[in-house]
Amino acid sequence: MTRPRVGIVGAGQLGRMLALAGYPLGIDCTLLDTSADAPGAQVAASVLGSLDDPRALAKLADVVDVVTLEIENVAVAALESLDGHIDVFPPPAAVAAAQDRLAEKRLFRSLGIPTAEFVTIDSEADAASAEALGWPAILKTRRMGYDGRGQRVVDSAAALAAAWRELGGVPSIAEAFVEFDRELSLIAVQGARDERVFYPLAENVHRNGILASTIAPYEDAELQRKAEAWLAAIMSTLQYRGVLTVELFHTKSGLVANEMAPRVHNSGHWTIEGAVTSQFENHLRAVLGWPLGDARARGHAAMLNLIGRLPPRDTVLGIPGAHLHDYGKSPRPQRKVGHCTLVDEDRARLLERLTTLRAVVSRSNQ
Amino acid sequence: MTRPRVGIVGAGQLGRMLALAGYPLGIDCTLLDTSADAPGAQVAASVLGSLDDPRALAKLADVVDVVTLEIENVAVAALESLDGHIDVFPPPAAVAAAQDRLAEKRLFRSLGIPTAEFVTIDSEADAASAEALGWPAILKTRRMGYDGRGQRVVDSAAALAAAWRELGGVPSIAEAFVEFDRELSLIAVQGARDERVFYPLAENVHRNGILASTIAPYEDAELQRKAEAWLAAIMSTLQYRGVLTVELFHTKSGLVANEMAPRVHNSGHWTIEGAVTSQFENHLRAVLGWPLGDARARGHAAMLNLIGRLPPRDTVLGIPGAHLHDYGKSPRPQRKVGHCTLVDEDRARLLERLTTLRAVVSRSNQ
Repeated sequence: MTRPRVGIVGAGQLGRMLALAGYPLGIDCTLLDTSADAPGAQVAASVLGSLDDPRALAKLADVVDVVTLEIENVAVAALESLDGHIDVFPPPAAVAAAQDRLAEKRLFRSLGIPTAEFVTIDSEADAASAEALGWPAILKTRRMGYDGRGQRVVDSAAALAAAWRELGGVPSIAEAFVEFDRELSLIAVQGARDERVFYPLAENVHRNGILASTIAPYEDAELQRKAEAWLAAIMSTLQYRGVLTVELFHTKSGLVANEMAPRVHNSGHWTIEGAVTSQFENHLRAVLGWPLGDARARGHAAMLNLIGRLPPRDTVLGIPGAHLHDYGKSPRPQRKVGHCTLVDEDRARLLERLTTLRAVVSRSNQ
Repeated sequence: MTRPRVGIVGAGQLGRMLALAGYPLGIDCTLLDTSADAPGAQVAASVLGSLDDPRALAKLADVVDVVTLEIENVAVAALESLDGHIDVFPPPAAVAAAQDRLAEKRLFRSLGIPTAEFVTIDSEADAASAEALGWPAILKTRRMGYDGRGQRVVDSAAALAAAWRELGGVPSIAEAFVEFDRELSLIAVQGARDERVFYPLAENVHRNGILASTIAPYEDAELQRKAEAWLAAIMSTLQYRGVLTVELFHTKSGLVANEMAPRVHNSGHWTIEGAVTSQFENHLRAVLGWPLGDARARGHAAMLNLIGRLPPRDTVLGIPGAHLHDYGKSPRPQRKVGHCTLVDEDRARLLERLTTLRAVVSRSNQ
């Protein structure tokens, strides 16, 4: 029996976890990255090259059956250069929509999905138009934003103009500040015959613009139904294939879509131990045209990102139900170097253990 | 933070699953095998050489922090040659006891653990002594038996003598035939400070001497307690470290120990998805001196070995809750090429799906 070969653009921790999910299924992953020591390249075959270089992508395409990606900030033109040679999932047009905040917001609006109010900021003169949003507002570059980068909270038109210059004077948007009770995310998967599975909503906590922790499932049947309908509409419109994540604000007046990611997502890492089928396995199943796996939660799960440096492994593993994921990265402030997932059938006990885990991790960072 | 390095003697599917369990923990495994295409060598670093060659073991020891094994049929003298250079877990003396059916039986007896009645067969003349066991009896070579190899069921002293010659005229034992209601196994783990965890009992079905399927947990508090006491005694006596498996017969008059394996075991593959911590992760934790993980079951699990050749992946994955493990082996009759685990919170539904899985696998083998 031939072994399916999947090419992955990017070899960060997401590529690493995709490759590791592939091994039990007999899938050989090859990852494209600029570094042979990237997290994914440590555990699977890799091709060295720029993620935006059509020649590097062609080299990757030469050794695999289908191409996917673990990062949306790649040149869509480079992905499109593979068109006609090999399948690329999700489709480059979906990647294009997800990597541009303006295109993303317009897509959401066109499907009746509420978003924060926004205006485009392409010049200092545009700053005045943000007055209508009220202050504070958030300036965000249209492209290349992640983990809080390319964003500034501003409280006047003058501050907005200054921040726009600081961020490079690139095409941007200003968003009204959304008051929310909590941040949620929904992860969905669409397969080859447009069949879909949805994970339960997860509740996320960010610190300094970086995801700190996720608790899942967040049980609210009404919100779940609404969010699923939105992701179904997006995936249908984009002729999607693979995992799609949408981050949501839960506000007094209901759900508001924040942004989407055309890939497996940090807020879905809990699915490795906490769901019947992980987001990584389901993404591989989708791009290979295989049946999708059951996305239901198994009890309750909490995921804590390990940021800056890894705590001592044996200390973390001393906490009952703790699962450690080391990305093989060297320490650096604000860098995601790993994560830890706790699972428990009882939510109250899970939250107690999460408190213990947070204390262990915070002590080791002092 | 330094990355722990574990050397594994053997790179079959057990070594492969150990290496894959190591990656999330940031453990680099290096496997010793005669083939660079062995299942484990496909997914991790490897050293080429004979498992019985002290020079090959020394080469392995040179690049790791601790040595363990995935197969007990290795030369104990070769393992002992590492003594004083590097830790080897489980200790070579425990491997020696497990690879010799006579030493194993004597160990069980010395600890008050019931076994089948047996006599030693070292010559044709010894065949007569087996009369006392009654017929049929089972002739087993003392060494190198696995998956039913090195065994013959015989129904007379003459047949026993003939079978002994056929099996090579090597030191053997004859065992009384044990009438049992079911076969069970218990997997235990002992850590660096002699702390222990026990998985729940699992029920096994063999076909042609090869494990066909496992269902876990087998819930019987009394049997669980008794089996745990036996494994605790064995591990304590052997100053054990790592995973130890004992296969048991459940007879009308209670449990009888059949044999032990000083390693992760096929009857524990269900623990990957079916227990809080898998046997593979717990073995690595034990040999590295880390805290052991929770060994409790998460719902119910059934494991079906895929023997001969792999069924179409997408057919298997179409069964809800199915998890496929492809060992990367080429097809061959009677060869374990993979396994599939089903998990479900409901045992009755699990058994229905196991029936479906069996049908799918058996159709694909026609």
